[in-house]
Amino acid sequence: MEKINIKTSKRIDLIDITGEIENVVTKSKVKTGICFLFCPHTTAGLTINENADPSVRRDIINTLNKLVPQNPGYAHTEGNADSHIKSSLFGASLTIFIENGSLAFGTWQGIYFCEGDGPRSREVWIKIV
Amino acid sequence: MEKINIKTSKRIDLIDITGEIENVVTKSKVKTGICFLFCPHTTAGLTINENADPSVRRDIINTLNKLVPQNPGYAHTEGNADSHIKSSLFGASLTIFIENGSLAFGTWQGIYFCEGDGPRSREVWIKIV
Amino acid sequence: MEKINIKTSKRIDLIDITGEIENVVTKSKVKTGICFLFCPHTTAGLTINENADPSVRRDIINTLNKLVPQNPGYAHTEGNADSHIKSSLFGASLTIFIENGSLAFGTWQGIYFCEGDGPRSREVWIKIV
Repeated sequence: MEKINIKTSKRIDLIDITGEIENVVTKSKVKTGICFLFCPHTTAGLTINENADPSVRRDIINTLNKLVPQNPGYAHTEGNADSHIKSSLFGASLTIFIENGSLAFGTWQGIYFCEGDGPRSREVWIKIV
Repeated sequence: MEKINIKTSKRIDLIDITGEIENVVTKSKVKTGICFLFCPHTTAGLTINENADPSVRRDIINTLNKLVPQNPGYAHTEGNADSHIKSSLFGASLTIFIENGSLAFGTWQGIYFCEGDGPRSREVWIKIV
Repeated sequence: MEKINIKTSKRIDLIDITGEIENVVTKSKVKTGICFLFCPHTTAGLTINENADPSVRRDIINTLNKLVPQNPGYAHTEGNADSHIKSSLFGASLTIFIENGSLAFGTWQGIYFCEGDGPRSREVWIKIV
């Protein structure tokens, strides 16, 4: 299992980690295979979405904040109940194919670490087969 | 990596692709294994749900449209900001087991391609191990 | 493929199945690998979230019920249209790494079976590679 470290700077943020994951794939020397990603945090998640126009990220964040607001009506009283719920909506695991020694993506795709309760030091775990 | 092609006919739609994926599994001759699916589009996704009553699909679409409406308040101005958000709620990857040379499903399950910004020509990528 | 059985007691519930899955991993004697989980039901799902404070589970359930209420306005008339939609929001498959013969988790993570239309007898399917 490989690990990458991520420093997040906002409470809610989508951080492009495509390059870091691609580096792990390159080092593995696997030419054709599968890259599995796992987020070991319960107030964060992983998603794949557009990596061209940064406004897409802003819309995802704003909409998630509207659907799951950080308000005081939750049972969990640490102030991050919304972060746990967002984590389950994004999901903790991703599966991406490897072809020709690289992550196989559609034209506009990138991998995002979905910070839900930052700023924090975070990890993403990687297995390549 | 195998690919199947999908022609979608509506802006938002759930299209049953179980038969197409099953064909790829049959051709692979794998009897016991795992089928990985990947959606290479940022305004579409993949999900597993009921394939009996088509009204289930309609309820999923209507509810997603209520939660994430196609309105003009988004930062991304291509008219498909909602489609990107829906894509992340469904997710881009699925894992389905293969037993006896077939996809192993519960009684009512089928695989759906979730079109979020059609009509378009789309692909689903498949790896079988 | 291994299977575990789950008896649910409420209509909507999050049930910690980490111990049962860990038992399957232990029996497999796999020391380093990947554990794939699949939910064969269209009105239930799987998620990973906090296993310390039970109020997190309650907040997830309450928020999902607010976003996708069990009301009579759905096309699917079996009274569980909301359960199908919740199933797709959680997702049917999970991927968890195995290290040192155990599931590799972050500090607060556990695996939850997300019952959306109980009480019922349910299964989770497991493959370890």
